[in-house]
Amino acid sequence: MTGSVQNASDTSEVNAVRPIGVAVLGMGNVGAEVVRIITDNADDLRARVGAPVEIRGVAVRDLSRPRKIGQELLTDDPASLIARDDVDIVVELMGGIDPARALIRTALESGKSVVTANKALLAEYTGELASAAAEAKVDLYFEAAVAGAIPVIRPLMQSLAGDTVERVAGIVNGTTNFILSEMDETGADYADTLAEAGRLGYAEADPTADVEGYDAAAKAAILASIAFHSRVTAADVHREGISSVTAADLVAAKKFDCTIKLLSICERVRDVDGSQRVSARVYPALIPLTHPLATVNGAFNAVVVEAENAGRLMFYGQGAGGSPTASAVLGDMVMAARNRVHGGRGPLESTYASLPIAPIDDVFTRYYISMRVADRPGVLAQVAGEFTKRSVSIAAVRQEGAGDDARLIVVTHRAPDRAQSDCVAALEDMDAVIKVSSVLRLEGTDD
Amino acid sequence: MTGSVQNASDTSEVNAVRPIGVAVLGMGNVGAEVVRIITDNADDLRARVGAPVEIRGVAVRDLSRPRKIGQELLTDDPASLIARDDVDIVVELMGGIDPARALIRTALESGKSVVTANKALLAEYTGELASAAAEAKVDLYFEAAVAGAIPVIRPLMQSLAGDTVERVAGIVNGTTNFILSEMDETGADYADTLAEAGRLGYAEADPTADVEGYDAAAKAAILASIAFHSRVTAADVHREGISSVTAADLVAAKKFDCTIKLLSICERVRDVDGSQRVSARVYPALIPLTHPLATVNGAFNAVVVEAENAGRLMFYGQGAGGSPTASAVLGDMVMAARNRVHGGRGPLESTYASLPIAPIDDVFTRYYISMRVADRPGVLAQVAGEFTKRSVSIAAVRQEGAGDDARLIVVTHRAPDRAQSDCVAALEDMDAVIKVSSVLRLEGTDD
Repeated sequence: MTGSVQNASDTSEVNAVRPIGVAVLGMGNVGAEVVRIITDNADDLRARVGAPVEIRGVAVRDLSRPRKIGQELLTDDPASLIARDDVDIVVELMGGIDPARALIRTALESGKSVVTANKALLAEYTGELASAAAEAKVDLYFEAAVAGAIPVIRPLMQSLAGDTVERVAGIVNGTTNFILSEMDETGADYADTLAEAGRLGYAEADPTADVEGYDAAAKAAILASIAFHSRVTAADVHREGISSVTAADLVAAKKFDCTIKLLSICERVRDVDGSQRVSARVYPALIPLTHPLATVNGAFNAVVVEAENAGRLMFYGQGAGGSPTASAVLGDMVMAARNRVHGGRGPLESTYASLPIAPIDDVFTRYYISMRVADRPGVLAQVAGEFTKRSVSIAAVRQEGAGDDARLIVVTHRAPDRAQSDCVAALEDMDAVIKVSSVLRLEGTDD
Repeated sequence: MTGSVQNASDTSEVNAVRPIGVAVLGMGNVGAEVVRIITDNADDLRARVGAPVEIRGVAVRDLSRPRKIGQELLTDDPASLIARDDVDIVVELMGGIDPARALIRTALESGKSVVTANKALLAEYTGELASAAAEAKVDLYFEAAVAGAIPVIRPLMQSLAGDTVERVAGIVNGTTNFILSEMDETGADYADTLAEAGRLGYAEADPTADVEGYDAAAKAAILASIAFHSRVTAADVHREGISSVTAADLVAAKKFDCTIKLLSICERVRDVDGSQRVSARVYPALIPLTHPLATVNGAFNAVVVEAENAGRLMFYGQGAGGSPTASAVLGDMVMAARNRVHGGRGPLESTYASLPIAPIDDVFTRYYISMRVADRPGVLAQVAGEFTKRSVSIAAVRQEGAGDDARLIVVTHRAPDRAQSDCVAALEDMDAVIKVSSVLRLEGTDD
């Protein structure tokens, strides 16, 4: 407002300053923590913002449920709450597309800044929401939408603003990472481990969004948009979940000094004609045990960023949970509040590069293929022939077992994903191949 | 200026916008990279800033040295360069206190934003410089001053603005980390490894600032100031270098499943009366091999942040070198330039908490003490007695060798550092102790 007080330490003298009013939409794990921290840390927040931060109300679905907050602050009418003149910042933690989308739009259009952790919404509608924010000259912050407490949006958007990002690869879904880590450690199979994750609270009753990669794909879309200054939505992300990963795959991965992780990968594809595209994809992949992401276990998240000048950076921490996610939400809230007190706004969507999406077929990948084969001479030569035909070079072969249990494992060098998947299709048609039991990609290697 | 164009992607239409003029002071490794990237990436920078970014001049000490830049841009008169009306942002990469301090002050006072990587200057004079920036309502950014390309200042200042930081511990000096990693790997002693680091370009001709911990202490002061919203200068940092670490220490550390790293530690000290202080300290310490910092080797840097709600976060990457440091400088430059085009400013110094400094004597630490002792019964009881007297509890003891080579290694539990160092002094006075050969602290454990 005044724009004159820049140093937070000066503001203790400014007592007449108008408080910043906050509306919180949703009071689940994260919302409850946000409300608690705003209340408990009021003095610190006032000093950091340069004005008191006051909760105007919390919108919930069910008013009758007991909550750790004064009843007078609760409402089941979010639209009226955000319409209040004394609300400056709306913190949206309801999740889902509707009614969050309309509520956020309305908030932005009426000049409120918005902080949200809603990855599903952002993966579809960042363009629409950022336009509304730009029009109204307010902030739209969403650090908590990707990797919980780990700062990754702000580093990508601001710290790397003078660099050229080549690749972002991360473990950004705690549920699937917990399941794969457990399978790796215990040798249990997917179904049992998923059930255990549910019992321990790491998987939801309907785990589809996590285990089928939808959550990771939404985050990949958000990361790719920012990293490559292009609009990438969830529909642009090639997506494969972890439900077909077996205990046997994890054992086999170890023999190649690898483990298996569900990765969200955003890549700048540099085509031979000098043009560039963006690949965004989510799939379970083998990565070498020496890769920095290989040791990220349990519900932890990590994101590796490779940029032309910065080189390889890694960000690691808790990717979910009430308090960690609330930490990220509150960092955004303080910045939005500071901007309202001191003037200025954070950066919004940047899509100037407008890079097209590279379909998965065009992306260079490596494959790990495990198959049951007939135990007779010449099979390897026949199999190898199919790869040669499609210019896919084989990096390693293992022959295991004998008789009915004869198996062949092939790991390929980099080649267009289409050529790799064509090889798999051809193998499935071969007489000598009884069954292609497993196909996974291999990431995190240089060759 | 206009404050109306928020979305970088919109600005392609705004061609009449005034360019942002940049003055670069210093053209060493980092300066040369900054100039190269500004030139090579002009289109991207224009889109991200919302205006063209133009280098107005580069101040160097020696005009006659050949450089990869048009002679007309070079000057040996930095004061005249920054005084130019068409300079909006000054990028200071000269290093050292003088004349950088006066030049930055002048730049800020005349309304230019400043980006600097000068940790020695910031560790002493952030207060003075931030006041000048606040007064003139301009930016002072310094992401590159700590840990090169790794975003750590911005996450601490912005992403964690709603959280309570408890601890920051980092490996922030590449030279000493290279030396300790090499000693650990090769078994070579300190002097030989330092000489090798010099040959490979990892140590300067005069390595004092690195090996005696001055560089790490300056960075600790900067990190502590931000993390705890208090003014901490280099003089407040307890500092010990690595020159007394021996090959034998690294071997002994391994026996305790530890390695040795030079750590910069910033800690919120919570006293029993409920008051809080700040401890900032730099010393070589044993850390468990399972600690995330234990695997940070060579010239890499990493910073672990522990916050009340976010939990433990880790940031990892290249902490030095021309391109990585230039990446951080340019991130800051883009943000400062955006603020000049779109209005607003980033946060400056925040010292509202004004926590006092806790001297090292008061800080709870753990000790690792290795000594040569007389090979006779009762020595251990005598040694243990000195610890008991000072209420320092022993966690582990190893007796090794015999006769003239009889050695005793003691690892203590947490106790005030003063009590620990008093124990060491008492041991040095004991007849049964021939020599206290090594004293190091142990960090990164829970007990």
